[in-house]
Amino acid sequence: MTNQNLPTHFVLFQPAGKSGVVPHGSTLLEAAQQLGVGIESICGGQKVCGKCKVLVETGTFGAGEIYSVEHHLTPPDSAEMKFLRRQGWEVNARLSCAARVIGDVVVTVPPESALHKQIVLKDAMPLHLTTDPAVRLVYINLPEAPLGGRLTLWEQVQQALAEHFQLSDLSADIVALRQLPAAAAKSKRRMTALVWDEREVIGFFPGYREKIYGLAVDVGSTSIAVYLSDLESGELLDSAGMMNPQVTCGDDLMSRVSYAMNHTDGLTKLQQAVIGGIDALASQVAERTGIAAEAIGDVVLVGNSVMHHTILGLNPVSLGQAPFQPVFGEGLDVKARDIGLHSVAAGAYAHLLPLEGGHVGADNVAVLLATAPHRQDALTLVIDVGTNGEIVLGNRQRLLSASSPTGPAFEGAAISHGMRATGGAIERVRIDPQTLAVRFRIIGDGRWSDEVTLPALGLCGTGILEVIAELFVSGILRADGRFNGRAATDRLRKRGRVYEFVLARSEETTAGREIVVTQNDVRAFQLAKAALYAGADLLMQKMGIRQVEKVQLAGAFGNLIDPQHALIVGLFPDVPPEQVHSVGNAAGDGARLALLSRSKRVEAESLANQVEYVEIALEDAFQEAFVGAMHFPHMSAPMPNARALIKRWRSGERGKQNEH
Amino acid sequence: MTNQNLPTHFVLFQPAGKSGVVPHGSTLLEAAQQLGVGIESICGGQKVCGKCKVLVETGTFGAGEIYSVEHHLTPPDSAEMKFLRRQGWEVNARLSCAARVIGDVVVTVPPESALHKQIVLKDAMPLHLTTDPAVRLVYINLPEAPLGGRLTLWEQVQQALAEHFQLSDLSADIVALRQLPAAAAKSKRRMTALVWDEREVIGFFPGYREKIYGLAVDVGSTSIAVYLSDLESGELLDSAGMMNPQVTCGDDLMSRVSYAMNHTDGLTKLQQAVIGGIDALASQVAERTGIAAEAIGDVVLVGNSVMHHTILGLNPVSLGQAPFQPVFGEGLDVKARDIGLHSVAAGAYAHLLPLEGGHVGADNVAVLLATAPHRQDALTLVIDVGTNGEIVLGNRQRLLSASSPTGPAFEGAAISHGMRATGGAIERVRIDPQTLAVRFRIIGDGRWSDEVTLPALGLCGTGILEVIAELFVSGILRADGRFNGRAATDRLRKRGRVYEFVLARSEETTAGREIVVTQNDVRAFQLAKAALYAGADLLMQKMGIRQVEKVQLAGAFGNLIDPQHALIVGLFPDVPPEQVHSVGNAAGDGARLALLSRSKRVEAESLANQVEYVEIALEDAFQEAFVGAMHFPHMSAPMPNARALIKRWRSGERGKQNEH
Repeated sequence: MTNQNLPTHFVLFQPAGKSGVVPHGSTLLEAAQQLGVGIESICGGQKVCGKCKVLVETGTFGAGEIYSVEHHLTPPDSAEMKFLRRQGWEVNARLSCAARVIGDVVVTVPPESALHKQIVLKDAMPLHLTTDPAVRLVYINLPEAPLGGRLTLWEQVQQALAEHFQLSDLSADIVALRQLPAAAAKSKRRMTALVWDEREVIGFFPGYREKIYGLAVDVGSTSIAVYLSDLESGELLDSAGMMNPQVTCGDDLMSRVSYAMNHTDGLTKLQQAVIGGIDALASQVAERTGIAAEAIGDVVLVGNSVMHHTILGLNPVSLGQAPFQPVFGEGLDVKARDIGLHSVAAGAYAHLLPLEGGHVGADNVAVLLATAPHRQDALTLVIDVGTNGEIVLGNRQRLLSASSPTGPAFEGAAISHGMRATGGAIERVRIDPQTLAVRFRIIGDGRWSDEVTLPALGLCGTGILEVIAELFVSGILRADGRFNGRAATDRLRKRGRVYEFVLARSEETTAGREIVVTQNDVRAFQLAKAALYAGADLLMQKMGIRQVEKVQLAGAFGNLIDPQHALIVGLFPDVPPEQVHSVGNAAGDGARLALLSRSKRVEAESLANQVEYVEIALEDAFQEAFVGAMHFPHMSAPMPNARALIKRWRSGERGKQNEH
Repeated sequence: MTNQNLPTHFVLFQPAGKSGVVPHGSTLLEAAQQLGVGIESICGGQKVCGKCKVLVETGTFGAGEIYSVEHHLTPPDSAEMKFLRRQGWEVNARLSCAARVIGDVVVTVPPESALHKQIVLKDAMPLHLTTDPAVRLVYINLPEAPLGGRLTLWEQVQQALAEHFQLSDLSADIVALRQLPAAAAKSKRRMTALVWDEREVIGFFPGYREKIYGLAVDVGSTSIAVYLSDLESGELLDSAGMMNPQVTCGDDLMSRVSYAMNHTDGLTKLQQAVIGGIDALASQVAERTGIAAEAIGDVVLVGNSVMHHTILGLNPVSLGQAPFQPVFGEGLDVKARDIGLHSVAAGAYAHLLPLEGGHVGADNVAVLLATAPHRQDALTLVIDVGTNGEIVLGNRQRLLSASSPTGPAFEGAAISHGMRATGGAIERVRIDPQTLAVRFRIIGDGRWSDEVTLPALGLCGTGILEVIAELFVSGILRADGRFNGRAATDRLRKRGRVYEFVLARSEETTAGREIVVTQNDVRAFQLAKAALYAGADLLMQKMGIRQVEKVQLAGAFGNLIDPQHALIVGLFPDVPPEQVHSVGNAAGDGARLALLSRSKRVEAESLANQVEYVEIALEDAFQEAFVGAMHFPHMSAPMPNARALIKRWRSGERGKQNEH
């Protein structure tokens, strides 16, 4: 198309501001590729997809000094004209694959045409991201095979990929090869190939296809969440969650490991349970959004080490005993079908983020991706509260991580009236320190129980935290966790030899169910919070610091947690209340980041190598720190912020935001 | 181990004659690697496998001029001494991984220690080969994981592979990772890894393992054969064959293609049938040899294009209609499990040889590997007679191939009393041209029917060829294929309006079954032989030659065929009888070559590219050649060799070797 004797022209791409000289007759798409400007294209210049739309600028640029440009492009041919008309685009819109440069020209690449899109992943804690997913669609239109020709159908595809997309040496998944003849036959040899990592064709669709989706999966010990995203726009289309079906094999990680060890088909059952759960959730979001399984072309999975191993079908027994060695821990691409995941495209890969160490898993790597302490100067404590409490301490200089055996108390389990954080669970509690009057709020209703009778069913994690903090502030509970029998409230009653506190009398809920906090519940909470505190304390000792600058609370529980209640009970080392933030389900967010961007996967790999993992079980200091941390807020640590807050609350002064 | 200040020494390896200077303190194994001498080693220097045995020479070499050498090696340590004593080896034997060079030394690498062994694959047509299989075993002995260490079990394996075997950047199949913890746990972290193509670990075995096996599979339209080999020695341990279960979906290729086209689950059924057959045969040979499926670490599959496609689950419909385009045709490595093959190691690959074109498949590439016309000067015609007759003509300059639609007559199908070549089938027939006396021989018995009454059941392919040739020579059959009603034998009788020939009267067989050759049988044979002849004729025209120098007959039928009978009926263009050779099941041999040697797979790929495939269906000249070739030996071609032979036989002069 270009000729050595023809002139070259200056081309400027906005808003990137990239410019340079290209040969006469280059298409704008070729010019963009030459100058390193990413423009989307599914059809590779066949005037089918319209993804490569650009706006041609005319007028004077650079205050008259630089360039006065005209529309120096070849005019649209009939195919392009037809396309432009059908789209109803701006008058200066052109297909960059069709318009050829015949003079100096300035074009603007609109955001929707950018190859790697700048997106914001969520509102609460904005996550900025440039999309760069592992899979993409390319449209090809094959010529008929000539009589007596030697090329196979796949070789024709390879030629088209090389010619229109500069994709060479691609391999083909056997599943894609099986789809190929039907895709070719259905639409006159026009089809769309699904390309993974610029390396492998993993699927074929008949005709032109422009939407491809991905699934991010956060597998917790107790619950599983899936997120379905449009891989081009990054848009979150739907999400769903459920209890991890593995809980029938044991509540916590150790009992799952024991299950794998003590049952001949234990590992198989654990794998089938978790994969079955993911499959069910994936089918659910696919059905709700009307998206076929074959259109889900990529999957990212995160989970702690035991979840990671059972997802892959790897024996987790070595994770349950010293030296807590994982079988495998690098970032991994495995065919979804090879782990039994069938609710996505048959050729799709599942990517597992890397593990950090024996007990801090890929879910924590995901949390780090989302919270990014390694990009900050402030010494930050990131706490992901699940069945295990995963703790990272550090900043861009150094990162330490540990996993605290908190148990499932924060998830509402192992508590008499505990329940998951779903509709009907008490999530907020207030006790007046003077009158000891009680009120609460449940998930799914904005009103307090002193305004209206609520259908409360039990206590979720935040409800447990708040009721205990409030009981402590109002003096019903002592600093050592024992009930104060002299507290002036008839809600405190004795059952046998121990006290219990009636948070909701049966007549106070429409469900007619009494909701009680027992001495054992308080003990379970104390063990959990002490484990968390002691883990953080240990990392601070290792780091040689006495104070952190910032606390980020992640996880389903962390998301809902009230920072002041958390500070009051001493869930973590002392810090000014305004420096405690909830960052939501950061593991899920990290999984979504890795789903939308290959560079985030690379970052995850380097994070996993960078984090220094501390095996808490090996540290005597952990046991020591644990004992003091059983107290509210702590037996011996000064904790000025926490104590000041307790004092203020006891005197009836609460911040506005904590009033309701 | 080596030191810059220490001297270097001269080392000579016999019989390779490779020599050079190595640093003081190098092991002989390191010295060999440095000098490009391949020495086997499974344990990588851990004194476990003994595969690296060498013999240390002392005395004077090179007529006293070159070297007078002593045993300039470090003495055996106690571990090596123990090993040497247990083996009872020669007194000058050493483990090359243990003996370190401390002076000039000459060593001999015995054949069993050579990394790539020179072997002869078979006796009939010797196939010389240097083994270089795609998989190998390596023994590793991992240290305990340290407390607080960061390495995963897999990373420890990677370190061991890099340190002892110079294998770096290996990936792990998910199946291997699943086997890893159990393999490590069972034998104190001593295990054997199965490495594919120096690229991927595809399995782990607990402890030390030194035997690994492979399966070569020849999938014909009518029958399937498997060959189980020791991949290190190349030894053939067992083989087995069966009818291709796909025959229930249609006798010939076109009816299989139709089956795939006309039944919704047709392709699935075809795939399950053929893979089920292979699995059954593999289990059979594994059971007979006492070899576990997990020890079968590699598979090579060959078959025509339709077999190739159905094995892979690729739709073969495009192979059934012009322009006969395959979906995929390059040499392919696919996980055996991804094609449903479960009778081999779970992580094993199956390698499919490349296709040549629409109808000449990977089986023909295998035939070429085994017969190697591309390494010869003589213009050779290679004919593989199966349900399709695959023909290659050429030499080292040029190769042409075609596929002739012979139908299944040569395999005993579509013939009234036809049967497969198994026990009880008549395979040899003699008719005295003077007396018209008939005698025959059956498979499984060396005696003729005029000596003893035989349990004949029917006619196999060679029996059909011989009875028709003999009928023609003795004048009972005319050159145009009609029975001669005036022939003086009561075995020729009329049934309705057509003749038939009673080859065996019911009282002539212990089975009590009459075996007859009908006029239709003769026609079916004529069609088959004319297709073969015309295909070869067409290739000769394309090549611009009138005479070939050599004919090689391959395939189960080709293996048993008598060259003189074949020449007399005009199965192929005229050639001196002594230039016709049976080369046995060359497709199976080619598959075995590719199983034992990666370089043969590379050769196959280049052969497939080199062969010019001629699509017979597109050539008018084929139809023209076909008509003349219906006659015995031919209607118009001079065929001097064939006619001279017929004349000699008619006059009662037969060569000794054809007497019985």
